[in-house]
Amino acid sequence: MLMEFENVLPSEIEKRSFEIIESELPHDIEKKIKPIVKRVIHTTADFDYLDNLCFSENVVEIIKNAIKNGADIVTDTQMARSGINKKRLASYGGEVHCFMSDEDVAKAAKENGTTRAVASMEKASKLEKDVIFAVGNAPTALIELDKLIKNGQINPIAIIGVPVGFVNVVQAKELIMTSGVPYIVARGRKGGSNVAAAICNAIIYDLKTD
Amino acid sequence: MLMEFENVLPSEIEKRSFEIIESELPHDIEKKIKPIVKRVIHTTADFDYLDNLCFSENVVEIIKNAIKNGADIVTDTQMARSGINKKRLASYGGEVHCFMSDEDVAKAAKENGTTRAVASMEKASKLEKDVIFAVGNAPTALIELDKLIKNGQINPIAIIGVPVGFVNVVQAKELIMTSGVPYIVARGRKGGSNVAAAICNAIIYDLKTD
Repeated sequence: MLMEFENVLPSEIEKRSFEIIESELPHDIEKKIKPIVKRVIHTTADFDYLDNLCFSENVVEIIKNAIKNGADIVTDTQMARSGINKKRLASYGGEVHCFMSDEDVAKAAKENGTTRAVASMEKASKLEKDVIFAVGNAPTALIELDKLIKNGQINPIAIIGVPVGFVNVVQAKELIMTSGVPYIVARGRKGGSNVAAAICNAIIYDLKTD
Repeated sequence: MLMEFENVLPSEIEKRSFEIIESELPHDIEKKIKPIVKRVIHTTADFDYLDNLCFSENVVEIIKNAIKNGADIVTDTQMARSGINKKRLASYGGEVHCFMSDEDVAKAAKENGTTRAVASMEKASKLEKDVIFAVGNAPTALIELDKLIKNGQINPIAIIGVPVGFVNVVQAKELIMTSGVPYIVARGRKGGSNVAAAICNAIIYDLKTD
């Protein structure tokens, strides 16, 4: 089967993609969350995220304001870190951290019989800046964040909780939604490092249109 | 809504995840492709890949043999490069390249009015090793690969063609399936850098069980 290619300039591919997504979306999506929903669908071609993505009240403005004021982002995978537009974030004064490959994190995880994701969240709790967590892989990271919040050890700006998977993923996301911290969560099993990066980028890119 | 967590040791999470996936899969999946299908579902929690993933004859053995003999992998995103187990690949003598951020690639793309993905495939065509392409983002990379193959400029071991998206993505994947080169393709709109990395890792990890 050979099919005709659409004649689109390289510089127009993303624009055209978003037009197609827009044309397939229902019309009643709230304006503030729409750029996020669209970019996640752009990243996954999966319209399930229309229903999966859950937003706490005013979370998008809260994250936007924090980024404008130089907040950092902490991810639980190098892939998510790799996917976030670090140059654009740096233009506001923020940087992206991922502690997963750090030797001290590996050591702490081994000693405590826990995951590196847990140890890397613990390490992140020592950052002395405003922090947004973007978790696309490890439900254990979310469970640890909830614990650190309850213990008063962290008070993050927001948690983007979109790990993908089959073991404790659904539960960990529900937990974050009751943590009292502003959240964007992909309810259910779906998500991923790519989804975490897409949500961060959607918010960063939308800043310039504000 | 608070839900009970499953009590699984950190070291057992992946194993338990694969058991759950296995229990939800139909029983008639071909043995050779099963580890790939399972790892892609592990990465996406999306069982659509059961139907989407298409394999040319013997492609898995072809890629396995090439990796055992030290073949390199070329990706079209830093995210895909970031997600592939480079240490394990290096144990066979291979490395992962992504030329997307290279200055000469940006320059060539600008001069030729094309995408950086196209320019980076062109650059990859000059590698003097056996190469497996893993394309998770840019349909233009697949279209360029097809051109380079037809012109006799490259003869890749195989193409993992799993870009995600809305503009020319479906068509570019169909094109690769008629290129004569061994392929693994995620038919339709879905795919991504995470899917490309998952397919590479599934094959690399399966080598030790052969």
